[in-house]
Amino acid sequence: MTVHESVINMKKASPVLASSSVELRDRALAAAASALQAHRAEIFEANRADCTAAEAAGIKPSVMKRLLFNEHKLDDCLKGIQDLIAMPDPLGRTLLERELDEGLTLRRVSVPIGVIGIIFEARPDALIQISSLCIKSGNCAVLKGGKETERTNRALFRIIHEAVTSAGLPDECLLQVSAHSEIDELLTCSDCVDLLIPRGSNAFVRHIMDSTKIPVMGHSDGICTTYVDEDADFEKSVPIIVDAKCQYPAACNATETLLVHRRIAEGFLPLAARALEANGVRLRGTREVQSILPEISDRDIMEEADFRTEYLDLILSIKLVDSVEEACAHINRYGSHHTDAILTENAAHAETFMSLVDSAGVYQNCSTRFADGYRYGFGAEVGISTGKLHARGPVGLEGLTTYKYRLTGSGQIVGDYAEGRKQFHFRGLL
Amino acid sequence: MTVHESVINMKKASPVLASSSVELRDRALAAAASALQAHRAEIFEANRADCTAAEAAGIKPSVMKRLLFNEHKLDDCLKGIQDLIAMPDPLGRTLLERELDEGLTLRRVSVPIGVIGIIFEARPDALIQISSLCIKSGNCAVLKGGKETERTNRALFRIIHEAVTSAGLPDECLLQVSAHSEIDELLTCSDCVDLLIPRGSNAFVRHIMDSTKIPVMGHSDGICTTYVDEDADFEKSVPIIVDAKCQYPAACNATETLLVHRRIAEGFLPLAARALEANGVRLRGTREVQSILPEISDRDIMEEADFRTEYLDLILSIKLVDSVEEACAHINRYGSHHTDAILTENAAHAETFMSLVDSAGVYQNCSTRFADGYRYGFGAEVGISTGKLHARGPVGLEGLTTYKYRLTGSGQIVGDYAEGRKQFHFRGLL
Repeated sequence: MTVHESVINMKKASPVLASSSVELRDRALAAAASALQAHRAEIFEANRADCTAAEAAGIKPSVMKRLLFNEHKLDDCLKGIQDLIAMPDPLGRTLLERELDEGLTLRRVSVPIGVIGIIFEARPDALIQISSLCIKSGNCAVLKGGKETERTNRALFRIIHEAVTSAGLPDECLLQVSAHSEIDELLTCSDCVDLLIPRGSNAFVRHIMDSTKIPVMGHSDGICTTYVDEDADFEKSVPIIVDAKCQYPAACNATETLLVHRRIAEGFLPLAARALEANGVRLRGTREVQSILPEISDRDIMEEADFRTEYLDLILSIKLVDSVEEACAHINRYGSHHTDAILTENAAHAETFMSLVDSAGVYQNCSTRFADGYRYGFGAEVGISTGKLHARGPVGLEGLTTYKYRLTGSGQIVGDYAEGRKQFHFRGLL
Repeated sequence: MTVHESVINMKKASPVLASSSVELRDRALAAAASALQAHRAEIFEANRADCTAAEAAGIKPSVMKRLLFNEHKLDDCLKGIQDLIAMPDPLGRTLLERELDEGLTLRRVSVPIGVIGIIFEARPDALIQISSLCIKSGNCAVLKGGKETERTNRALFRIIHEAVTSAGLPDECLLQVSAHSEIDELLTCSDCVDLLIPRGSNAFVRHIMDSTKIPVMGHSDGICTTYVDEDADFEKSVPIIVDAKCQYPAACNATETLLVHRRIAEGFLPLAARALEANGVRLRGTREVQSILPEISDRDIMEEADFRTEYLDLILSIKLVDSVEEACAHINRYGSHHTDAILTENAAHAETFMSLVDSAGVYQNCSTRFADGYRYGFGAEVGISTGKLHARGPVGLEGLTTYKYRLTGSGQIVGDYAEGRKQFHFRGLL
């Protein structure tokens, strides 16, 4: 069977999963957790083979850390599944209820999106997290993981798929594709895939967005900015900036740009620079910033357009501004609408910033690194969306649902209302 | 200025409109209503010129009715603006509030989408409705109306734009484009347009969807189905089918296909056929349907694939099925995920239908023609979405909003949580 044929079958089966009870979906998740537990040895063996092959291929140690799947990571995943089971059903929630007229009742009810294709990086825990999020939210999922963990993924998929189908979910609820050519085939399945979620490098995500007619959710860039306002508390601000830049510089929510109000720049910048440099950060900035921080070398002088750079590394762009409004304009123009923070004790400035900055996350007095489904209390996430439609920011269970309108009548026809024989009364029940 | 330059300016101004108070937006709407009222004569004169030109060009009388803008239609529009003013602010609603930890509070707040491009058919009331929906929801709008009402649109736009900017909205909140080539330019503005809403023929909507990287909301096909279950009440069902087919056959929510349970087909079909034929409906169907309704001519015999037809006319496709499940499978395969109805007195069958059919609207015992923003009590609508992401079904004020996450802290850094010095407590406030 081609990928397209398999996904067409998945699409046909998707209403069955969509209308399954939460008890069945939770039972399937519990079965998956037990099966993963029971097959620990087999999973770790497959992962050892992946790691050995990756080492032989000369993979960087930083990447190796992501490939490795050990007792500790499996335990985290099992804990994640238990957390999901404990969460309320995201489906069948009545989002609106309204009596349009006597005996004619409209309800907006949450339902799964349907068939979701997820292409993710070589990280075995991602497969477990994503498939369990999809099962809890009643979505069928086509999974394509990074090739460096192919053996681990194959073992994990087989174990999970067997467990959830034995528990009663339709056979077509999960599908694994592995060849890179199958991604291209998946991109053409606009008749049967409702949503694509690509994760990985910016270039990869952008390639997916440009190569398909299927809606894509995700983020390509993560150019996050922290703005230090004239009314910032210096002592509070320095650790926030260090955390936002250094706690995990490769993350999309790490701060790439520091804007500082001109009035406090001479006092604040040397303090911040000392702390950042102590953490190994290389500073870049405008000529004006260099005049305050002479350690900035000439090759690190920045022009306007350079502020569109995502480093994903221990490098920080710095610029001065005259007002919170100017900071907002800079962020809206050069940022990537991901997450941006203001550091200030001035409530009016904070309000201006949070209302003018057009990003999924707008923060006051905390690190941009908080932009994450787990830290927002959503349980797990399938990714972070910088698009403005459907879901914005970290996407968890709720972002994997949509709704349908159910209208229950007793013989009503539109003609009666169009010709004035009857009137709607729009009585809100919810 | 090119369209692109104008829309870039609009994008820069959009945070100002987004953060405007509802009082200001309502005042702007009231000013627009007064100005339209005061300039009645001028509007009707422009419309007479459009109608004269259209008549000279030999436009069909059915289309002429849409072009005509008279006292009655203007009054309806003014009433629509008053209704919008009376509606609560769709912006700034707290959709979620959660204390992540002491002094670290997350709020999800509704905000406008930003810049919306709307391309609509030659109907002067559409310009008024769309621009007022966008103003109430804090969105900047680029408006392109049908060329047959160009003079009327120009007059309406000028009056509305002058009124709302005099009331204090930014000059860039509304932009009118008129040349067809400007649509092509608009389609390339993915850096400054957040959403496109095309209205019009299927071919046109599909052309837009295929020609841009900007997200598109709308519907191309409207293949709605009514299924008559074995437990249908015949007396209730016949008028519903007649209404669903005949009340306004050119609408996207008119029923195009009738599915009938095989067990009741011989009793029900002749009844339904008599009523439909009395309303001028031409019946088509499978060979089996012809054996019950011999008036169906041989050229109207249908094969499976023919059921993908949207007539937008007094023509109806008919097929028999063996169960509610088979009806659902047919609808999910050949329908367009717009609106589908089951006629039955059997609650279990209705539940099966409403849960298995994957459409924006699933109805029991009423006409598919109810799928409409006004009839749902949303006030006006910008269109009906058959996509599954963001907004589904009739799209009113709420569908024109998205949200942002506001996180207010007091110096929190992620390192403290990642290294176990602090724990989230996720206390739900809302």
